[in-house]
Amino acid sequence: MWAGDDASRGLGMTLDEVRPGYARVSMRVREDMVNGHAICHGGFVFAVADSAFAFACNSYNRSSVAQACDIVFVAPALLADVLVAEAVERTRFGRNGVYDVTVRRGGSEVVAEFRGRSREIAGTLVPEGPEGAG
Amino acid sequence: MWAGDDASRGLGMTLDEVRPGYARVSMRVREDMVNGHAICHGGFVFAVADSAFAFACNSYNRSSVAQACDIVFVAPALLADVLVAEAVERTRFGRNGVYDVTVRRGGSEVVAEFRGRSREIAGTLVPEGPEGAG
Amino acid sequence: MWAGDDASRGLGMTLDEVRPGYARVSMRVREDMVNGHAICHGGFVFAVADSAFAFACNSYNRSSVAQACDIVFVAPALLADVLVAEAVERTRFGRNGVYDVTVRRGGSEVVAEFRGRSREIAGTLVPEGPEGAG
Amino acid sequence: MWAGDDASRGLGMTLDEVRPGYARVSMRVREDMVNGHAICHGGFVFAVADSAFAFACNSYNRSSVAQACDIVFVAPALLADVLVAEAVERTRFGRNGVYDVTVRRGGSEVVAEFRGRSREIAGTLVPEGPEGAG
Repeated sequence: MWAGDDASRGLGMTLDEVRPGYARVSMRVREDMVNGHAICHGGFVFAVADSAFAFACNSYNRSSVAQACDIVFVAPALLADVLVAEAVERTRFGRNGVYDVTVRRGGSEVVAEFRGRSREIAGTLVPEGPEGAG
Repeated sequence: MWAGDDASRGLGMTLDEVRPGYARVSMRVREDMVNGHAICHGGFVFAVADSAFAFACNSYNRSSVAQACDIVFVAPALLADVLVAEAVERTRFGRNGVYDVTVRRGGSEVVAEFRGRSREIAGTLVPEGPEGAG
Repeated sequence: MWAGDDASRGLGMTLDEVRPGYARVSMRVREDMVNGHAICHGGFVFAVADSAFAFACNSYNRSSVAQACDIVFVAPALLADVLVAEAVERTRFGRNGVYDVTVRRGGSEVVAEFRGRSREIAGTLVPEGPEGAG
Repeated sequence: MWAGDDASRGLGMTLDEVRPGYARVSMRVREDMVNGHAICHGGFVFAVADSAFAFACNSYNRSSVAQACDIVFVAPALLADVLVAEAVERTRFGRNGVYDVTVRRGGSEVVAEFRGRSREIAGTLVPEGPEGAG
């Protein structure tokens, strides 16, 4: 999945950890991500949270897509900050999932709280079983 | 405000229209915004909506910031699509505002529905002189 | 549908209007809905919005359920206020829908802005026979 | 605070536990809360979550109000179910707070996931005397 996600890599993100129901992604705030006051555009804060969410909700090898997300902006992210987005599964039911993502700067201060709702679609990310049967 | 928003310009956005309570922003989906299947990363769809929201909620010359936003992903945006985000004020109360933003591709198909909550902070965007005082 | 909704009627709601993609529901704030300061509990403001949403998203004779909702509290509702919740469809895609509901008091002042996301499930609300086809 | 909340008590809620940043509230689903299929109206599921949120965000003796909330409906609540809503603080910043509330039935199954955003207003809930100052 990471292999195909050129957009996340283009933003300089790194996938630090992924396991069932969990993912952690980092991104450094670059000059092309800030406005004139060196404050990161909200879209990039959202993007790192959204990528962590995507890896977490796909961590069960069932293709899942984001249905809806909400984000609360807690503190500004600044130029050169390393943002760390940590996605944790809250609940799964049927083909749906709810994931909480906290974005921090400098390893501690909260920048944003994000919640994503996922839905499984047909297909797996990598073949399952000797023949690949689902 | 647009003058200082290097991030929005770096994403290739154009501010097509802005008036009190309203803004329209466009952005073309570039190669660095898509994953391996030519589908735009959700962060960029959010970004164009967020920029339209920011212009609309600052259209009264009172500095306002995004408190929280939510987005529903309706249909994928694809490479080379021109996304148009139209932000309309829904309500204002005290220092708060609620804005609805619809993101469309190709001028008609809905890609995402976004709702943003803003809050005024101290300061104006441009000086209010003796003639300009509200 | 209204016939089976004892809960809405128990809260004193009336269904004022319903047509495809739209519903309007009213409810008077009773003594058992307020706290010691005569302010309506948020749960009842949500309830009238949620009922209007339910009627609107079921207005196409396809059984639909609420997946998720969000509400912004704009102004308090007070004892004896007549709350009017007006639900308007924003978009439909696949089996999903997005509806906006505004709750007003006294016919004008906004009390809350609600957004609901629905999903169709199997079944219709009334039989679609040769005579009942819409 | 509980003393003045007639609405919550009228719904049969009990405040089981409250401490800084945390509250747990229970409510039995009554006949007047369900529709014809014995399924609890979403407004009452929201109400128990909202009450738990209100107690948690007021647990620091600073008057706080709900600004906005969102809820994901996970599974239906049924007649006679005892719903338990557990509110946990996620983050506080300035005069704002974010709280997560999980509503369960039968002590385990998740019925709904709720997130509330609070804002402190002027005033304290109980007087802060010379001995009581924090």
